[in-house]
Amino acid sequence: MQNFEFFTPTKILFGKGAVADLPTEIKRYTNRVLLTYGGGSVKRLGIYDTVTNLLKQNGIEYIELSGIEPNPKVESVELGTKLCRDNNLGGVLALGGGSTIDCSKVIAGAVGYNGNAWDIVLNPDKIKSVLPIFTVLTLSATGSEMNGNAVISNMQSNDKKGVYHIDFKPKCSVLDPEYTFSVSPWQTASGTADIMSHIFETYFNKTKGTMVQDNIAEGLLKVCIENGKKAFDNPTDYTARANLMWASSLAINGLTGMGKSGAWSCHAMEHQLSAYYDITHGAGLATLTPAWFEYVLNDDTVDKFKSYGVNVWGIDSSLDKYEIANKAIEKTKNFLFNDLKLPKTLKEYGIDETYLEIMAEKAANEGLKYAYKPLEKKDVLAIYMSCLG
Amino acid sequence: MQNFEFFTPTKILFGKGAVADLPTEIKRYTNRVLLTYGGGSVKRLGIYDTVTNLLKQNGIEYIELSGIEPNPKVESVELGTKLCRDNNLGGVLALGGGSTIDCSKVIAGAVGYNGNAWDIVLNPDKIKSVLPIFTVLTLSATGSEMNGNAVISNMQSNDKKGVYHIDFKPKCSVLDPEYTFSVSPWQTASGTADIMSHIFETYFNKTKGTMVQDNIAEGLLKVCIENGKKAFDNPTDYTARANLMWASSLAINGLTGMGKSGAWSCHAMEHQLSAYYDITHGAGLATLTPAWFEYVLNDDTVDKFKSYGVNVWGIDSSLDKYEIANKAIEKTKNFLFNDLKLPKTLKEYGIDETYLEIMAEKAANEGLKYAYKPLEKKDVLAIYMSCLG
Repeated sequence: MQNFEFFTPTKILFGKGAVADLPTEIKRYTNRVLLTYGGGSVKRLGIYDTVTNLLKQNGIEYIELSGIEPNPKVESVELGTKLCRDNNLGGVLALGGGSTIDCSKVIAGAVGYNGNAWDIVLNPDKIKSVLPIFTVLTLSATGSEMNGNAVISNMQSNDKKGVYHIDFKPKCSVLDPEYTFSVSPWQTASGTADIMSHIFETYFNKTKGTMVQDNIAEGLLKVCIENGKKAFDNPTDYTARANLMWASSLAINGLTGMGKSGAWSCHAMEHQLSAYYDITHGAGLATLTPAWFEYVLNDDTVDKFKSYGVNVWGIDSSLDKYEIANKAIEKTKNFLFNDLKLPKTLKEYGIDETYLEIMAEKAANEGLKYAYKPLEKKDVLAIYMSCLG
Repeated sequence: MQNFEFFTPTKILFGKGAVADLPTEIKRYTNRVLLTYGGGSVKRLGIYDTVTNLLKQNGIEYIELSGIEPNPKVESVELGTKLCRDNNLGGVLALGGGSTIDCSKVIAGAVGYNGNAWDIVLNPDKIKSVLPIFTVLTLSATGSEMNGNAVISNMQSNDKKGVYHIDFKPKCSVLDPEYTFSVSPWQTASGTADIMSHIFETYFNKTKGTMVQDNIAEGLLKVCIENGKKAFDNPTDYTARANLMWASSLAINGLTGMGKSGAWSCHAMEHQLSAYYDITHGAGLATLTPAWFEYVLNDDTVDKFKSYGVNVWGIDSSLDKYEIANKAIEKTKNFLFNDLKLPKTLKEYGIDETYLEIMAEKAANEGLKYAYKPLEKKDVLAIYMSCLG
């Protein structure tokens, strides 16, 4: 295990009706917020009305920024930043999933920066201050509600970049499983794949002696498999939604990744797909992950795949380790492509060979020489090709 | 899963040499602290010198309170409170295990209270303010380094009481596994039993639908079993010490217990043993736990014991569930009493029947009608008797 710093100061208000306590938490910091959301779903579902009524009842003023994109664009960050400045707002309250939350984080960091918002995405050291961030989560996927990460797209340059700042960690996040009841099977499946990918990216890692992190990872993967399927099949299963929601936050708040190092492979490869084709992030990860598994399985990595197969999928530990590894990969494919009906090939998104070369080069440049199995452009290209279909 | 609030704002600095960053964290709050510790071990091991040199180099003044007892007494709280007031100190820095940390928490809460310290132990609502708390952990056991709990003894009334306050959560805790290298086999074993008991107390719970919490619990129990034994056999095994240390914090920071309700049984019963006989808390828990397992195993609880047996001990899931449950209890006994050589009977501590009745009554009054299997005085007495020896 390597040295690490673990710091998760976000107060989680979890459960049915938990939003009632949100105004108290906001008022610890401000009584003027930017209220951000995406499309109309938060209005259609009544979440918008619930939250705005609570804000009004508690004397918290708000200005709205709606229309934040599924892959949030830097232009939305700039709009929100201007609204905060023009209205002298003291915090950002995001209603939505990872996209809205990520955009809100970068708005919160851009308000105090005198320049283009894209600058701080490329170099978060330029951030001078961050407004307090609050979230009401409506999609179990990115884990943005409990960490300091954000991903922003710049469609002009076909770039999708991750950015981290310690103060991007929300002050308070409301996790009400009922707010995810109306999430579509497609988004439920994609979200589940996203959560699992966050765990895979740190579980398949070269650092030794991390049993705490690995055991938590295995436990959360089992949660995703059981509850992802249940929520996919029965969208109003509270227990399934609750476990999936809490797993989404814990998967990427540091618990599974602390004390390890190395670059994330599938996320780097998927960000290129989203940047060029604007596809759903979690679905893209689902398509790439088994192909990546097959590409990186070798004598150095097979023992970890064996642990994955035995501890997550319950495969008989007395079998040959490559047999266990291959069975585990097959079970993963079956879960993602049959149980959750996610796309098995890039072709299903309308992706062909046109940009594979440039995407492979960009992905490899995201530090993939430090990945679990170091990947160069040719390796990424081979992985893309293997799931082209 | 029930509604819950999860809030763990403690910044953890983990790993070899991590203490170097502690002064920066202290100086966010104060430059005058009460430095608390127990016996001479922190001096003998050089931890005291390392920390005091860092304080001096960083311009942080300190006043010392040494001699905090293994079961910290309210008199020590009063001494520390007076030192803080007399010297106008702005924080408390604990060097030690749970005893020193617990005492430091109550000192931090008593400074701003105009009355006897025991009052705030009995009623933490009386706490007006809490000084910032910092810890350098030297024993993996209580998890006090990452939560808001403290346990204080009043030997005059033979009381040992738990107290919780949200601001008792340390601002920063240093977890350096090397600081536990010299922990004796006895204390290593007792600490491991304490960590496991924290997990058992929430794992064996009637609340349904808590797969996230239960899977994390099972993962951490496996960490304790593997690494507790390794650390017991080889005290300078860094990886074992690291995993045990991180597990100790995560076992009782809310991860395994949030979203559940109900009283803790073994802790209530053990606190009476410590209060009357001043025995080592973790060892007492080890003695009581298998007896409690046997007493509460019935048709209502057997399925949870089956999960424990299958997922923690790897027992064949196709066996009869009572067979699995009983095998799991036997394996637990073997681990605690043979591998870790902890006392199997109360007799080994010199405990006889003298106080069993009064202890049973006091324990039952600690809310045990709300326990996993509700326990009355007669039940507690039966459990005490069954491990009398």
